[in-house]
Amino acid sequence: MASYLVTGSSRGLGLALVARLANLPKTEVGTIIATARQDNSAPLTEIVNASSGRVKMLKLDVTEIASVEGAVRAAERSLQGKGLDVLINNAGLMDWSPTGLEGMDNLNDMFHANVTAAHLVSRAFLPLLRKGNRKTVVNISSTLGSITMADAFKSMPVPAYKISKAALSMLTVQYAHQYADDGFTFLGISPGWLRTDLGGSRADLPVETGAEKVVDIIQKATPKQNGKFVNIHVPGWKEGQGADRADQYDGNEIPW
Amino acid sequence: MASYLVTGSSRGLGLALVARLANLPKTEVGTIIATARQDNSAPLTEIVNASSGRVKMLKLDVTEIASVEGAVRAAERSLQGKGLDVLINNAGLMDWSPTGLEGMDNLNDMFHANVTAAHLVSRAFLPLLRKGNRKTVVNISSTLGSITMADAFKSMPVPAYKISKAALSMLTVQYAHQYADDGFTFLGISPGWLRTDLGGSRADLPVETGAEKVVDIIQKATPKQNGKFVNIHVPGWKEGQGADRADQYDGNEIPW
Repeated sequence: MASYLVTGSSRGLGLALVARLANLPKTEVGTIIATARQDNSAPLTEIVNASSGRVKMLKLDVTEIASVEGAVRAAERSLQGKGLDVLINNAGLMDWSPTGLEGMDNLNDMFHANVTAAHLVSRAFLPLLRKGNRKTVVNISSTLGSITMADAFKSMPVPAYKISKAALSMLTVQYAHQYADDGFTFLGISPGWLRTDLGGSRADLPVETGAEKVVDIIQKATPKQNGKFVNIHVPGWKEGQGADRADQYDGNEIPW
Repeated sequence: MASYLVTGSSRGLGLALVARLANLPKTEVGTIIATARQDNSAPLTEIVNASSGRVKMLKLDVTEIASVEGAVRAAERSLQGKGLDVLINNAGLMDWSPTGLEGMDNLNDMFHANVTAAHLVSRAFLPLLRKGNRKTVVNISSTLGSITMADAFKSMPVPAYKISKAALSMLTVQYAHQYADDGFTFLGISPGWLRTDLGGSRADLPVETGAEKVVDIIQKATPKQNGKFVNIHVPGWKEGQGADRADQYDGNEIPW
């Protein structure tokens, strides 16, 4: 049984990831540390209360180094001498700039929240992860961060988000290189376009599907995937359900 | 004859770009606006003084929005009613972190200097560029920013630089998409590993070669290259001069 820490779990994909993990048998998933900037999320509190101590809530602002350091100490206590197996850097922001680059005034904030925060958290949790069996760090990203695929997403006015996620890919690869010899697996995952506050109501998939598929990838991940960027796998799902189109969630590697 | 503005031209590649441009015939290159954070660069002053008014020095801190706005007004006066043809976003920083990610404490600063600054400058100069004939914006980047090529650069401990340049590629592509229909050409160029303060003394090429090759690319650029990331072309140059190796500066597109 593996222990998990999920950031940004008060709502959206983070909350769904915690719910999914808490539904898996204890032979597979042990302690689940659910972090959130505010500790007043009703649905998260509900999961914690129903979990018989398995899910632990932890207040963590991933953008503040002091908060991150405090969370490491608190997580250490929760794990009672064991290591952390899986860290999921899920907390993140998305901009919305109808005028595109002209209105892009939040680039530094977006970068700090989506890239620097993942760095601060990963770096601070490395000692606990080293003591874990899985040594797996997942950075939740998006195909919107694929420069190769950028043409397909021209009409999505989230330039700062796209730029930050491209940068996050390079961060993932840098970590993968530096800690490969220590048995680590750093992985970027695109969870699909999900119906959450961030993804909006017109998104492709229910958040539960995204969470289930992300957990599938993590449970099967090995150091062979270290430094990869992968798509979830939803067999047969096509944009607009057109039978002639390629599967959009094909479980394959996403090009940079 | 095309007008140019080069940022970060007090030294290094920026200075060499200004020197190269000032050496080209006036049928090809008109007014050259050389910007620098400090206006006390002796070699730049020398070029300005020898240029008979063709090279104009302008104080500009690309990381400060007020400074950028002031530079737009000053450039407008220098161009006397004409547009700006080519903007070269050359100003940039490189980190050096011998412990890799463990010592990477400057990620936000690096991002602000290498990505956000290019955004602030590009956005502010768009009206002047629209009035120009070339409508060309060059972001000086590096193959170190290629996620695809990251394996080859594992041993270079400049993680924040690599992350910022990957992000810069996505910025270039976002600008390329948004302004394609207006006839713009946004281009990322890797100038090669050059012997400058930033590149160090063990680098591959003299800075003058890099500057010459970058200017070659810019002079030939057309909207067909909009959104591309290209390498300089130095025929026959191979790492370690091994005859069996592929040309390192092949003039081709660089993979993301």
